[in-house]
This record gives sequence, C-alpha cells and structure tokens, in this order.
Amino acid sequence: MSTQTENTAIAQTAQIISQILTTWKSGSSRVTAFFKQYPDEFYQQEVAPGRSRAIYLLGHLVSSSDGLLPLFGISERLYPQLEKLFSTSPDRAFNDIPSVAELREYWEKVNNTLADHFSKMQPQDWLSRHTKVSEEDFAKEPHRNKLNVLLSRTTHISYHVGQLVFLNKKEEAAI
Amino acid sequence: MSTQTENTAIAQTAQIISQILTTWKSGSSRVTAFFKQYPDEFYQQEVAPGRSRAIYLLGHLVSSSDGLLPLFGISERLYPQLEKLFSTSPDRAFNDIPSVAELREYWEKVNNTLADHFSKMQPQDWLSRHTKVSEEDFAKEPHRNKLNVLLSRTTHISYHVGQLVFLNKKEEAAI
Repeated sequence: MSTQTENTAIAQTAQIISQILTTWKSGSSRVTAFFKQYPDEFYQQEVAPGRSRAIYLLGHLVSSSDGLLPLFGISERLYPQLEKLFSTSPDRAFNDIPSVAELREYWEKVNNTLADHFSKMQPQDWLSRHTKVSEEDFAKEPHRNKLNVLLSRTTHISYHVGQLVFLNKKEEAAI
Repeated sequence: MSTQTENTAIAQTAQIISQILTTWKSGSSRVTAFFKQYPDEFYQQEVAPGRSRAIYLLGHLVSSSDGLLPLFGISERLYPQLEKLFSTSPDRAFNDIPSVAELREYWEKVNNTLADHFSKMQPQDWLSRHTKVSEEDFAKEPHRNKLNVLLSRTTHISYHVGQLVFLNKKEEAAI
C-alpha cells in the first residue's frame, strides 16, 4: 500500500476527531451563551413545572464535564464539591449551592482545561480506555474508550440545552 | 511508513465512524422506546406548558431524519408531506396531521433506510460534501460534509429527547 493511502487515512482520522470536538465545543458554547443572556435571578426558575431549576442544570453540566478530568486520567476534579450537589442528588437536595456567577466561572475553567487537553490528544489516545473500565474488560469491549465518553457527553449537553430553552420567550425558543 | 501504520489508521477511522453511528442509533432508539411506552393519546400532551406536543416532536424528528435522504444524495424524501407539517411550521399550524401510529411507522422506515445506507458508507463518503453545499464552497469549507450533518442530527435528537422526558412521571424522569 502507498504512503499516500496511509496519509489519507491519518488525515481522515484527524479530521473526524476534529469535527467531533467542534460538535462538543459548540454544545458547550450554547450553554455558555444561554447563561450570559439574562440577569442571574432569571436562572432560579424551573425549566418546566416541578423540574430542575436552570441554575441546577448549569451546576449539573459543570459537574459532568469536570468528571471528565479523572475519567480521562488528566487530573482530579477541579471542583469535587459539585459532584454531590449536582450529579448524585436532584435539584433542591441542598440549600447551599454555588451562585450562578460562580458556576459560570467554573464552567469556563473546566471547559478551557478540557479543550486544552483534548487539543493535544492523538487518535490512539481517543481510542484508549477511560479510567473506569479495567484493562480486562476493555479488551472485550474496545468501544469503552475516551471518544465514546466525549460523544455521550456531547449528546448529554444537547439534552439539557433542549430543556433550558423552555425558559426563553416562546417567540425566541427553538422548537 | 509501514503497512502496519496504514492499517492502524484505516482501522481507527472505521472504529471512530462506527462509534458515531452507534451514538446516532442510540438516540433514535431512545425516541422509538419513548413512543412505545404509553397509549397513543398520551402523546397529544404538550411537553411543557405552551410548548410542542409530543406527537409534533415525533413528526419533527421523522421529517428531520427523512431530510437526510436528499441531503446525502440517497433518494427523495420518503414522506415529503411531513416537511411542511413538522419542519417549516410550528405545532398546531395544521389540524390534519398523521396519527402517532403512522408517525411511528414512518420513523422506523426512515431509520432503517438510513441505517442500511450508512452501513455501506466508507470514510471518504462521510467526508464528502452534502447536497446543499456547492463544490466551490466545499473546497473552502471541507467540514460541511455528511459526517457533520450526522453529528448535528445526533445532538438534535438528544435535544428533543431532553424535552420529551418531561412527560415521564417525575420519579422516572432523568434530570
């Protein structure tokens, strides 16, 4: 086989990973934009009657993204206190949670840290196991890799963006 | 460079595309499962006060996926009548829309048609332009390819699944 074919395959892989990263970033940017759109009190509203408040969903998304740091073997969580508040408990389980301003700052910090790390990852890194799967299990289930985690976190962000937009005025909301 | 490196790159590309397809399929399956869960009348409810009814969101998702057929140059839409009802008009613009039973059938047919076609696509097909971008523009913006369309449709499905789950009882609902 030719070097040209090889280069083609390598370039294709790089392009595909770059497009996945762009999709992840664009979901995160949509969250960032939404939480800059209104005064902070606005985000104390529930997205639908009896459902989570917007501030909780922001904390939930920060905690979810922060969890990628240990899952990818990059570092410990930057804000480990968020896991109990926003990942393993529903909204209103705790009265004392960070403010929207604080969560917005954490969101930016976590995303920048991840983006910086992701930009250095090679295809083989994306296809390597995350830290919650054992070597033994990974040998049997090679799709349990970091790329799969990123894909599922990307759809997870959209899932909650679809809920957050219910707080927009009806005329402005997407379907 | 060695044949082994080349094979590695080709295998990586194939694995990454396969994982993206799995993510798309799992989003679609979540919709399928949701619309099998309750009696048909259930889906006449709005997902939140003043928002779209579940039946409309199903029609919207069928129409969106059906639109991939011409966008990928596979065929015309299977159900062209859905575009006006569910893509270019909001809910309740038309009284006469297909039933949940019909939409469920369309959803299955469209997804099977797409999955069948997708399974035969090679990496270079995924990275080729979709039919709404000209050759000239594509030369400048090579990310406007079929893979990008699939990624954005995958997050689009999750966006609406996040809304549909509001109809589940609170105990059963995801955050």
